Amino acid sequence: MTEQGTEVFIDCLQFSNPTRSRFEDLRTGRLTAINQTVAIWEDSRAAIANIGAWDRLFEQHNDLIVKARTVDDILAARATGRTAVVLGFQNGSPFEDDIDLVRTFHDLGVRIVQLTYNVQNHIGSGCFESRDSGISSLFGRSVINEMNEVGMLIDVSHCGERTTLEAIALSERPVAITHANPASFVGDQVDLAMRNKSDHVIDALAERGGVIGLSMYPRMAPDGRACTLSRFAEMVAWTVERVGVEHVGIGSDFCAGHSDETMLWWRTGRWSREPVVQLDPVSFPDWMPTPAQFPALQGGLAGVGFESEEISLIMGGNWLRVFAETFGGSAVHAGAPALAADV
Amino acid sequence: MTEQGTEVFIDCLQFSNPTRSRFEDLRTGRLTAINQTVAIWEDSRAAIANIGAWDRLFEQHNDLIVKARTVDDILAARATGRTAVVLGFQNGSPFEDDIDLVRTFHDLGVRIVQLTYNVQNHIGSGCFESRDSGISSLFGRSVINEMNEVGMLIDVSHCGERTTLEAIALSERPVAITHANPASFVGDQVDLAMRNKSDHVIDALAERGGVIGLSMYPRMAPDGRACTLSRFAEMVAWTVERVGVEHVGIGSDFCAGHSDETMLWWRTGRWSREPVVQLDPVSFPDWMPTPAQFPALQGGLAGVGFESEEISLIMGGNWLRVFAETFGGSAVHAGAPALAADV
Repeated sequence: MTEQGTEVFIDCLQFSNPTRSRFEDLRTGRLTAINQTVAIWEDSRAAIANIGAWDRLFEQHNDLIVKARTVDDILAARATGRTAVVLGFQNGSPFEDDIDLVRTFHDLGVRIVQLTYNVQNHIGSGCFESRDSGISSLFGRSVINEMNEVGMLIDVSHCGERTTLEAIALSERPVAITHANPASFVGDQVDLAMRNKSDHVIDALAERGGVIGLSMYPRMAPDGRACTLSRFAEMVAWTVERVGVEHVGIGSDFCAGHSDETMLWWRTGRWSREPVVQLDPVSFPDWMPTPAQFPALQGGLAGVGFESEEISLIMGGNWLRVFAETFGGSAVHAGAPALAADV
Repeated sequence: MTEQGTEVFIDCLQFSNPTRSRFEDLRTGRLTAINQTVAIWEDSRAAIANIGAWDRLFEQHNDLIVKARTVDDILAARATGRTAVVLGFQNGSPFEDDIDLVRTFHDLGVRIVQLTYNVQNHIGSGCFESRDSGISSLFGRSVINEMNEVGMLIDVSHCGERTTLEAIALSERPVAITHANPASFVGDQVDLAMRNKSDHVIDALAERGGVIGLSMYPRMAPDGRACTLSRFAEMVAWTVERVGVEHVGIGSDFCAGHSDETMLWWRTGRWSREPVVQLDPVSFPDWMPTPAQFPALQGGLAGVGFESEEISLIMGGNWLRVFAETFGGSAVHAGAPALAADV
């Protein structure tokens, strides 16, 4: 059995424009699985088109990547030396205001959905809003129940504080922060300080079995563009010290190959004519310029004293556990009566 | 000059399924203008289809009804013995998350838009939600600015309290409650008590030049199904006493001809599988079964002591004033620089 036969490397947020050379980077980086964003402001129709485009890519590049709906799919991809791609949304926008669309997108293979992207939507509030009344009492709660039932991982990375805390409290299953850092470690001198998460949030997430994916994205990382591998590893150690090694993973936020217009659209959507956050293009640190260098994290983690088993959990084992606890959904999806907890 | 040549009767909320006989009722009722709802949960495409259907109706029944974009259009309709129909939305849903769609729908003739319908959306919160964080700081404020600029009347009838108060405070132009009643007069024994408005809201609306349209809809009216014309007139008098005769109008909420399925959809949208409010069909009071009886209100108002000039304001003059202060928009819409107030 090769090294890849036992290790689990998962990057729980990537948003690169797909090309064959980037799929090759995933293999070079020995990535078992990634969470690939396929919608950010899209409505249902546009999200379906994006999923359709990815389904073509899965056919064309089936020597490198595999669409994964279950943990079994991920393990099967690993066994054949390919990277499992879990489709995810960074916004509830494809659900529009229609509770039935949760199941529709689950059927299409979407397994990880961030509830809000920076601003208010029907479900809750985003981290750019000045106020956050939490998960909306009608549609928001229904979406969480439905995601629990069908088996979609709830991601709260870009949600506001109250929306994040309420999603954690309301969900029957563990919740993910796929890509953000602890605010109290990083401080407020980075570009996107509002994107990082309070100790209170991280504690609550871990108490309910969730995982936070830490990112070396320079706008959120400690020391910003100057973040070294050892400094990143110190942040991992700080977070593990706080909430336990079972609750920390990696979510790089890699997003290469997009045009200026696309990146402006991410920041502005259609809800404004001016970007709320003015950001110039930024590259990832030289110790992790692309996912091909993902295994370098192992050395960084060893350098701050983590042992082999701990490194395995952080590099992917924790995400695999959360996926297993989530993607199965409840018996409801197979047509059986609702779980007591969901009634 | 006929009686209709000088009087102004405006019903600032109707939502009936359009038929020729209902257009004839408008003429029998000598209605100068109505605010006709053409979207409630619709997205942009569905709202465009509804407007298209109405445009066909304007052609087919141009002896009875006229599409009105301006106060001049309303006065021209009156001069030719026809009823002006102002197209309105009861939800910001057709704007989706796209600020440019405000101008698109203005171009299509929509002049009155309620920001939220019962539940949370991108703009703000509805009166069925248990919490309300107000107008969202990014998209919500942009929509209000844009509506002010192009000349759309902001309606807050179904909005939550905080969303209502903030819309009133943020808008440069008067805001409307097209159809609701004072909660402190009606009390909490009616089916839809949460739809009525606090004294604080009504005071704030009037202070900024707005108008509240009072409704005899039995679920919101004083004494519910037992509401008499004189009791309704007492509510008008109570409201006038509180905020002044310039700030009170009529918004009946007439909505005949819809199927059970359609009415269920109004209550449930697509955001839930069960209606939050279970309501059986209800008919309007026998003194006002259809808009054909609209002139009967004059007698009711005279019966509680209103004078002729006051009755004219309540029956439509106040709405015409607010329309004049709103529908013109700012010079921006004609391509000139933004008004100082909008910058």
